[in-house]
Amino acid sequence: MERIMTTQLAEHIGERVLLQGWRFRLRRLGGINFLALRDGWGIAQAVLDEADEVATVAPLPDESVLAIEGVVAIAPQAPGGFELRECRVHVLSPAEAPPPFELNKRVFKPGLDVFLDHAAVGLRQPQKRAIFRLGAAIMHAYRGYLYGEGFTEIQTPKLVGTATEGGANVFPVDYLGRTAYLAQSPQFYKQIMVGVYERVFEVGPVFRAEPHNTARHINEYVSLDAEMGFVHDHHTVMGVLSGVMRAIVGHLGAHHEQDLALLEAAPPHVPEAIPEVYFPEALEMIWRETGRDVRGEPDLAPEDERWLGEWARERYESDWVFVTGYPMAKRPFYTHPNPADPAYSNSFDLLFRGTELVTGGQRLHRYEDYVAALEARRLNPEDFAGYLEAFRHGMPPHGGFAIGLERFLMQLLGLANIRETTLFPRDLTRLAP
Amino acid sequence: MERIMTTQLAEHIGERVLLQGWRFRLRRLGGINFLALRDGWGIAQAVLDEADEVATVAPLPDESVLAIEGVVAIAPQAPGGFELRECRVHVLSPAEAPPPFELNKRVFKPGLDVFLDHAAVGLRQPQKRAIFRLGAAIMHAYRGYLYGEGFTEIQTPKLVGTATEGGANVFPVDYLGRTAYLAQSPQFYKQIMVGVYERVFEVGPVFRAEPHNTARHINEYVSLDAEMGFVHDHHTVMGVLSGVMRAIVGHLGAHHEQDLALLEAAPPHVPEAIPEVYFPEALEMIWRETGRDVRGEPDLAPEDERWLGEWARERYESDWVFVTGYPMAKRPFYTHPNPADPAYSNSFDLLFRGTELVTGGQRLHRYEDYVAALEARRLNPEDFAGYLEAFRHGMPPHGGFAIGLERFLMQLLGLANIRETTLFPRDLTRLAP
Repeated sequence: MERIMTTQLAEHIGERVLLQGWRFRLRRLGGINFLALRDGWGIAQAVLDEADEVATVAPLPDESVLAIEGVVAIAPQAPGGFELRECRVHVLSPAEAPPPFELNKRVFKPGLDVFLDHAAVGLRQPQKRAIFRLGAAIMHAYRGYLYGEGFTEIQTPKLVGTATEGGANVFPVDYLGRTAYLAQSPQFYKQIMVGVYERVFEVGPVFRAEPHNTARHINEYVSLDAEMGFVHDHHTVMGVLSGVMRAIVGHLGAHHEQDLALLEAAPPHVPEAIPEVYFPEALEMIWRETGRDVRGEPDLAPEDERWLGEWARERYESDWVFVTGYPMAKRPFYTHPNPADPAYSNSFDLLFRGTELVTGGQRLHRYEDYVAALEARRLNPEDFAGYLEAFRHGMPPHGGFAIGLERFLMQLLGLANIRETTLFPRDLTRLAP
Repeated sequence: MERIMTTQLAEHIGERVLLQGWRFRLRRLGGINFLALRDGWGIAQAVLDEADEVATVAPLPDESVLAIEGVVAIAPQAPGGFELRECRVHVLSPAEAPPPFELNKRVFKPGLDVFLDHAAVGLRQPQKRAIFRLGAAIMHAYRGYLYGEGFTEIQTPKLVGTATEGGANVFPVDYLGRTAYLAQSPQFYKQIMVGVYERVFEVGPVFRAEPHNTARHINEYVSLDAEMGFVHDHHTVMGVLSGVMRAIVGHLGAHHEQDLALLEAAPPHVPEAIPEVYFPEALEMIWRETGRDVRGEPDLAPEDERWLGEWARERYESDWVFVTGYPMAKRPFYTHPNPADPAYSNSFDLLFRGTELVTGGQRLHRYEDYVAALEARRLNPEDFAGYLEAFRHGMPPHGGFAIGLERFLMQLLGLANIRETTLFPRDLTRLAP
């Protein structure tokens, strides 16, 4: 008999079918044995009438792998509204021991460290797996939207010869007797590739040697990068990013209602025009409205971001707000200045619910501007020769952005620690599983 | 005026339009100046009548970034069949110097090292960029097919605490004072995730510390991985892989005819049933047909793979052939033996045009089998605790495969060196650009 999935029972009412999956729970209620079977997509209930079948299943630990044949019946009280009756159970692969925590409890809140230590099993818990199914959906919608906009996917090297962006926090690698570094971002490569395809994107790992543990930082994460040529300025990039966000949120709402419901989250509305505030005006506004004099600060503090998030919510009914024009001094050397106000930049952050989610902007595109920018930061242009070659040979005005997948999930789901939205997180103390 | 792309001229015949792109070539033919402009998608020809316009463009090096306004006219002799007339040219970003090689020559064959040194510009050459556009198309079709088959995308860590698969050839990383390693494959993680989603795939970088330079090996490459649960045996996996290959080849043929033509390549036919030969029988056949006595060899030599490729071509008109049942001794510890012939395995290689392209198979799924397999190889199960936990708690029969993206492109396009199909390759001597 061909196996069907637990999500396909409605198509087989009255038929005898074969399900396969994991023993999620066995309960005896009013003298009847209910077996809940979890497969990759859902959970189905089977009624075990026969003493033989109960005797087969009862001694096994949860998570044992089973095959169940039975007749599909409508059962409004069963999860999903159907159940299997007249069942025959076959053990495919017994578990050795009960799981390290009860995966089938409605409230699943093991300590984070305990959970992460046993993530290989813990991720099977329905809410936990919904998190990473949403992560997959974000990547899917991200790529799909950009693909439709004429972007080409690239996969750039993660092993690089020099520390990107001249910064600290890079991991050194013993590269066959030389020292290489793990890429902190695909920034240089995606800019180079604008010269080839004009519009490129990449979804891949980036590495930051964060020497401290916080709830919002992790040493390896998935970056959703994009870069595009022939922009007017950073507003062209912000337009594409707004489209990306609308596409992602629309996809989640349309195809992942159940995952969102399981996590008690709702897809946030993305307004037709995401509100925008210019950095120095944002500081001015915070001073005027709250009395905190942040004028002249070079960056936004978390408190400022939260305030701007609330302001956007109240004034524009928007979970999203663009802050543009961050001071040049706080942005990387490749940042394009605001031609009308050159201490400030053609850059932006997109705040989502009061926290920075995306960073982006227009980049320099003329060779001599790069040389000047590097020298102003006491960096040697010769160390950037391979990158600068692209600019010596004609680069259009361009810009792009990067979204952290795990941080997006964290803010979308209202979770407190980025380790909850990272599949097998890497931090100061954790390199396993 | 809104910019249009060079590929959209047919929709604007008789209209005045704006193009933007790179100066690909300026030629004077019969007293007329023809400017070829390359954008991210194609090349368009513009006729420069005015002395002013010629004077603007002529002194610039190729690859300078230009905007051209002109009227679209049908011109059968022009590339693509259209050209711009009554043109006005505007320089957006001049190149500093001519490109390091002539990107606009019909025959573009710089030495490989010279090309790789200047890849930041060389990748703009139309054939070179077609290679990586096909690479993007392979990833797109790969994900699309598996998504349709119910697979969930995962992104697993590239920093791992122990050397995967207990093997050599791993890169050590200085991880905040400890030693970590770069993942040689997502093997352990994708198996763990079968317990969560049943069917998973990943497209991402893998790292091999190859200490020698060959035309077929590279130290960082893109692996297209998949893993699925509840298989009957490796044949279930081979069925999915056949579907993947048909989907990829179909997608290339349907959407990338022009890229393939530029590279003088044709998408290979994937037969309804890819022929299959059992490893010991393959050796027997090679001995019988060629007189080379390879019986008892533990693996196929490149010569044997070539012979089997020709055999499949002649006998089945197939560019593809599965070799199944490689000796257990030559496969990794997690390989499932053939129950009927336990010195051989439920594994396979897929040969494409006489070279191995994909490796896969059924994996062990019972905890005690893992412990025994590790101990037989003198590996300590405790070093694999996080991985083995998945098997202690119920894992179904499962299997999967991995395709090397760059090798697929190399064989598809008939190129001699994998560095030609790797975007910014990393090898014994090369870590830049």
